[in-house]
Amino acid sequence: MTKVTVWNEYYHEKEYENIRKIYPEGIHRCIAGFLEKDKEFSVRTATFDMPEHGLTEEVLSDTDVLVWWSHAKQEELSDEVANRIKDHVHMGMGFIVLHSGHYSKPLKLLLGTSMTLRWRHDDRERLWCTAPAHPIAAGVPMQFEIPQEEAYGEYFDIPKPDDVVFMGWFASGEVFRSGVTFTRGLGKIFYFQPGHEEYPVYYQKEIQTILHNAVYWAKPQFRKREHLDCPEIKIPLESSY
Amino acid sequence: MTKVTVWNEYYHEKEYENIRKIYPEGIHRCIAGFLEKDKEFSVRTATFDMPEHGLTEEVLSDTDVLVWWSHAKQEELSDEVANRIKDHVHMGMGFIVLHSGHYSKPLKLLLGTSMTLRWRHDDRERLWCTAPAHPIAAGVPMQFEIPQEEAYGEYFDIPKPDDVVFMGWFASGEVFRSGVTFTRGLGKIFYFQPGHEEYPVYYQKEIQTILHNAVYWAKPQFRKREHLDCPEIKIPLESSY
Amino acid sequence: MTKVTVWNEYYHEKEYENIRKIYPEGIHRCIAGFLEKDKEFSVRTATFDMPEHGLTEEVLSDTDVLVWWSHAKQEELSDEVANRIKDHVHMGMGFIVLHSGHYSKPLKLLLGTSMTLRWRHDDRERLWCTAPAHPIAAGVPMQFEIPQEEAYGEYFDIPKPDDVVFMGWFASGEVFRSGVTFTRGLGKIFYFQPGHEEYPVYYQKEIQTILHNAVYWAKPQFRKREHLDCPEIKIPLESSY
Amino acid sequence: MTKVTVWNEYYHEKEYENIRKIYPEGIHRCIAGFLEKDKEFSVRTATFDMPEHGLTEEVLSDTDVLVWWSHAKQEELSDEVANRIKDHVHMGMGFIVLHSGHYSKPLKLLLGTSMTLRWRHDDRERLWCTAPAHPIAAGVPMQFEIPQEEAYGEYFDIPKPDDVVFMGWFASGEVFRSGVTFTRGLGKIFYFQPGHEEYPVYYQKEIQTILHNAVYWAKPQFRKREHLDCPEIKIPLESSY
Repeated sequence: MTKVTVWNEYYHEKEYENIRKIYPEGIHRCIAGFLEKDKEFSVRTATFDMPEHGLTEEVLSDTDVLVWWSHAKQEELSDEVANRIKDHVHMGMGFIVLHSGHYSKPLKLLLGTSMTLRWRHDDRERLWCTAPAHPIAAGVPMQFEIPQEEAYGEYFDIPKPDDVVFMGWFASGEVFRSGVTFTRGLGKIFYFQPGHEEYPVYYQKEIQTILHNAVYWAKPQFRKREHLDCPEIKIPLESSY
Repeated sequence: MTKVTVWNEYYHEKEYENIRKIYPEGIHRCIAGFLEKDKEFSVRTATFDMPEHGLTEEVLSDTDVLVWWSHAKQEELSDEVANRIKDHVHMGMGFIVLHSGHYSKPLKLLLGTSMTLRWRHDDRERLWCTAPAHPIAAGVPMQFEIPQEEAYGEYFDIPKPDDVVFMGWFASGEVFRSGVTFTRGLGKIFYFQPGHEEYPVYYQKEIQTILHNAVYWAKPQFRKREHLDCPEIKIPLESSY
Repeated sequence: MTKVTVWNEYYHEKEYENIRKIYPEGIHRCIAGFLEKDKEFSVRTATFDMPEHGLTEEVLSDTDVLVWWSHAKQEELSDEVANRIKDHVHMGMGFIVLHSGHYSKPLKLLLGTSMTLRWRHDDRERLWCTAPAHPIAAGVPMQFEIPQEEAYGEYFDIPKPDDVVFMGWFASGEVFRSGVTFTRGLGKIFYFQPGHEEYPVYYQKEIQTILHNAVYWAKPQFRKREHLDCPEIKIPLESSY
Repeated sequence: MTKVTVWNEYYHEKEYENIRKIYPEGIHRCIAGFLEKDKEFSVRTATFDMPEHGLTEEVLSDTDVLVWWSHAKQEELSDEVANRIKDHVHMGMGFIVLHSGHYSKPLKLLLGTSMTLRWRHDDRERLWCTAPAHPIAAGVPMQFEIPQEEAYGEYFDIPKPDDVVFMGWFASGEVFRSGVTFTRGLGKIFYFQPGHEEYPVYYQKEIQTILHNAVYWAKPQFRKREHLDCPEIKIPLESSY
């Protein structure tokens, strides 16, 4: 059983009529909905307005993979919670960050770059797979279109990814490393560009396949329960990390 | 069901009494023996002296993961078979290459470097895991010893690996990238240094865990049945590789 | 002083009036022309029809960086010369491969993948830099256009590059890893997609800057004069590769 | 002219007689001393006890490459200065971090992992080069010994490096990725393990060659003077990062 927590700010959906029409219960419920069809997944959701943003020590300790969508409230997120997420990723929790979450505090803390990019509303994206042997690409066509998407363009200021699984082509002239993976400590990270809130991107079949694959891929094979802090080497040698 | 073919030259074991004592039925039977305990694996073996070295088009088409041990006969291996292996790796077959197989024709064809290294008999190795989140490291201690092993030392002339999962420390003063992964086309490759024929390395529990993990990791998520040869782009766009 | 050999098949230019108009003395002379403006470079050229394709052991031993353009005669290239190039790259010679040279024998030998891609004539490319700190990108704008170029599209079957310095966007809907680097042995390799023979691509200022940078980057810091062949470790330890 | 700032805590040398004997003017003056023999380098030093640790906005704006040694005061370093260093690395400043500086605030901010490792005093290290074509390895032997060094051992919790230039073997049984590179934004980072304060490591010729090479390698090809903050794409497209 893989324990998944889908986190969403849940502000835009309440604020804007056109977005609420697309995601009446919020982006988190849409994503949780298609993930929980897999009976191997135990899915819960959390949002910005919950105490500690719904991401207490207890919740994160009980989460194998955290899925993340944020935009309007990135700067208001509690530093304590952001650091807690970072620590749990180090100890093995998977972290799947969507769209504007590239600029979220926990992802910035984990990657260490500015995470800047360029953007333009109202575009069309074609996603190309550049790592067909990667588990996140399983069953995904070599290319497919997202009819409406916000353009994200290079230069995208990220560390060199472990793998660039998907590259995005935008009709207006941009390219983007749209699906990239990183490892930080024991934790696996997948950043995935699609999912502007004004378009029904998370209802698209290929997108759902990718996120479903990503949860399997990001699930830790083991979790540490405490941090190491540069211990002295002892004899006999220890065997755990 | 994962179809595994364990290939071994099977010369040293017939030639030398001391080696035959360790592997009376050959290294391939030892490896096949512990792999086939997993009922998800369907394991067969093949050796150098079989027609086409036992690696006909039919056998390779029916193999998900090829495990490889070679040494004395590397130069005598058929070029046709070496190229056939390369093609099947491109189309998705996993390829796990052991010890002196670093200098085998198919691995050289796939990696494109000289594959040179330095060696010394009669040493002791300690393997350190440097990628604990990698599937091949699942359940493997951070470090463990191989009491007797041939030293392989840097500079090891390989392309930059996707991951260095294990690094070897040798008592006589060498280090070595002992467990390294590569992707070529759709195929996943794991090169693993341990396994000198004069020592009972493949009976060691940690070694067996690593190779068992490696078969799972190297299993293709899909196989192509033919090569692409730079096709012109047609409209509508194709979706397969 | 950096010794550069610019190699070109030199067939299309003699065969087709429209191509000859663009490159009256051949693509090699155009490239040699702008490189030799740098007085640090000593530039010569060689073509397919010369004995041993102009790439004798003496020429390659005296070459720091080999620049390569090929298309029509890829399959007819001598295997001996292709292997000689591979060996010299291993010993440190830089290798800059242009456009359709992705499918040349020496690059295939060095990279070990099928090198397949998709293509379409008569397109427009915008090159984006995705590694601004890379020496090959020095002085190159974040993006610039090539008004006429053949589209090359993913999936491009290459090993994971050391760096993806440039990504190409094509107006008809393709993306491509258009500028990628690899290391093989002591040799540095840069594959660069632009340069279809029917368009005046190598006259473009940004393209010339990139190739000029690439020669500096690919120049070896040292050259070996012989191959190592898995030597036994001796005491005292050697210090050379 | 390359502007180098060598930063050192400068506490151990004042506190302990045995360390002061080795570095009577501090580690920073030893390093500055051999670097400034290169007339292409303009070298200054700074230490913990200076106002703003000697790393004001003016100093960093005027620094191409920052060399860093820290240990006892890591937690007491000003957060503002640590973040300032991070920002300047993003904008292109090179950053060379030595020995116990792996646990410094600015490096942790830039890399995002826990940076934990294991250690043991009073050991002997042999450094092996695993990337002979890397500029930092120019003129460095394939292997050489550091007669006395503190052992640092895996698992070293760092992101996957761009290059592992050196691997360390320790007599007591450890291996370590002792020389590793990263790129963050426009800035190049080199972490180098040797340099325990109780041993005269920075007087060793090979160590000096490596650090001298590293300064050349880390020097930015251009510097940004301000941060981008996810700008909207405008027409005509901009060409700068």
